[in-house]
Order: sequence, then C-alpha cells, then structure tokens
Amino acid sequence: MLVIGIDPGTAICGWGVVRQEGSRIKAIAYGAAQTSPTLDTATRLAAVFNAIDALIKEHRPDVVGVEQLFFNKNVTTAMTVGQARGVILLAAALNGVAVAECTPLQVKQAVVGYGKATKEQVIYMTQKLLCLPAKPHPDDVADALAVAICTAHTSTLSKMRDNKR
Amino acid sequence: MLVIGIDPGTAICGWGVVRQEGSRIKAIAYGAAQTSPTLDTATRLAAVFNAIDALIKEHRPDVVGVEQLFFNKNVTTAMTVGQARGVILLAAALNGVAVAECTPLQVKQAVVGYGKATKEQVIYMTQKLLCLPAKPHPDDVADALAVAICTAHTSTLSKMRDNKR
Repeated sequence: MLVIGIDPGTAICGWGVVRQEGSRIKAIAYGAAQTSPTLDTATRLAAVFNAIDALIKEHRPDVVGVEQLFFNKNVTTAMTVGQARGVILLAAALNGVAVAECTPLQVKQAVVGYGKATKEQVIYMTQKLLCLPAKPHPDDVADALAVAICTAHTSTLSKMRDNKR
Repeated sequence: MLVIGIDPGTAICGWGVVRQEGSRIKAIAYGAAQTSPTLDTATRLAAVFNAIDALIKEHRPDVVGVEQLFFNKNVTTAMTVGQARGVILLAAALNGVAVAECTPLQVKQAVVGYGKATKEQVIYMTQKLLCLPAKPHPDDVADALAVAICTAHTSTLSKMRDNKR
C-alpha cells in the first residue's frame, strides 16, 4: 500500500510518501513545498495545490493521509491551516484518491505507541521506523511522514478487519 | 467592472455576480452551491471548487471578492470555513483572476453606510441597491451579493485613486 502523508500549511507544506508491505514500512520520498510570504494568499495556495497534485499524479497513492487538526490553537491559525487543508483535500478528490484523517493522538500512538508522546519523540521514532539517515528537516516533513505511517497502519488494520468479515 | 462576490461555505456557498457601470450597479446572476452532508469533506470541497471554477469561466470577472472572516467564532468553524475559502481562492488563482478581501465592517459600510448595521439591514439594502424583486434566499446569497457590492466599490475607488496619480 502506498500512502502520502501531509502536514498542511501555506508557508511550509510537509509531505512524505511511504510504502507498506506486510509489517515493513519504507520511505519512498519526502520533502516540503514552501511558498514565499511576499506572494498573495491565493497564489501561495495555488503553489501548494500544484505541488500536491503533481505528487499524487507521480506516486498514485492508495490513500492520502492528513492530520485532523487541533482545536487548541487560535482562530486565525485555524483559518489559515484550513485554507491549505482545503486545497489538499481538493487535490485528492480531483484525482479520485481516498482521504484518511488521523488525530494527533492516533499519530502519536502509531509512531511512538504512547498518546502523550512529545513532538521530539515522534520525530525520533519516525526517523528510526523509516531507517532515515538523518532527522527530516524541517519538522513539517517529519510530521508528514508520521501521518503517513499512522495512515498506513490504520488503513491496513481496517483492510484486515474487512477481509475477516 | 464585473465582480463575483462569494460567501464561503462547504454546505452552502453563496455567490453573486454584479456589474458596476459608473455609479450604477446591477445583479447579473446569483445563487448558492449546496452540497450534501452525506458526502465526505473532500468530495464536498471538490463540488464547491467546480461550481466556482465554472462560474469564473462563464463570467470572466475582473475580481473575485471574498469576505475576510471573523475572529469571534470557534476554531472548528474557522477550520471548516477556511477549507472552503482555500478552494475558492484557488479557483480564482488558477483562472488568473485577482482576489479582493473585504472585512465585515467594509461590507456593512459599503451596503448600509453604517459599520454596525445588522444582518437584516445588510440583506434589505442589498435587495434595494440591486433592485431585486425578492429577498435573495438563503441568506448566504444575500451575503455574497453584499460582498460583491463592497468589492465593486472598493475596486472602483482604488482605480480612481490610481488614475489621479
């Protein structure tokens, strides 16, 4: 199963492509789409959309995983992240790819095995699980890879449940 | 000058097309794109995007006006509205159309002439200014037309300023 995990943002949008084969999980590619603050919002959203659209067309994932975001930050941030999230969900829908949403708790449990894990623990375990030579940089890339791992686990589990029925 | 005003939403996305000629402003078309709550979010956002993309392609506006939303509602609402806003800004950018953002205060001042006008006053004056035979329904359509009026005023004023330089 091929999964693209995404950490939505307009300034930096992290992404990670992972392949799960049985119990093994492998990083195929990862990076971040970055946009200049000198551009207007609509142009930056178009850049994010085009980057994610191109990624989906290149890798043809079975599912795109996006973190179900946080309700503890401020409303302006939520609006901005929401805008980036909107164009990412759109890119998946226009390409006919399923979307899975992971809560931060699910991501921590999938990667560290502990729902109260710190951000540093999530990044450390993401690097270990995917046998990456170095810590992915910026953190948004590590977050996207963690979401991809979580999405792969969750989707595999629900597939196993479906097969048992 | 042709303007499309939009009141962003995933369930109901109001839109209004107005033409300003000198001091006269005329409604060309208006309505709302509605999506079923039984669909998943990505599919609903694709429906909103396709509706606005088609509108822009049909009317070729000079500018798309979107209300700059509110910081007094809750974070979940902001995230949801943000997602709809994201795909609308994207539709404008991908079609090479400029985006103007009006604050609720600017909309009220443009339509009613009073920044503390009520929602009902805005709807009433929108109907009067555009000589509409009935109150636009649902309210999201009236809101979109009010944003279109505000955007037309603001854009005309800034054009007059530019010409004077």
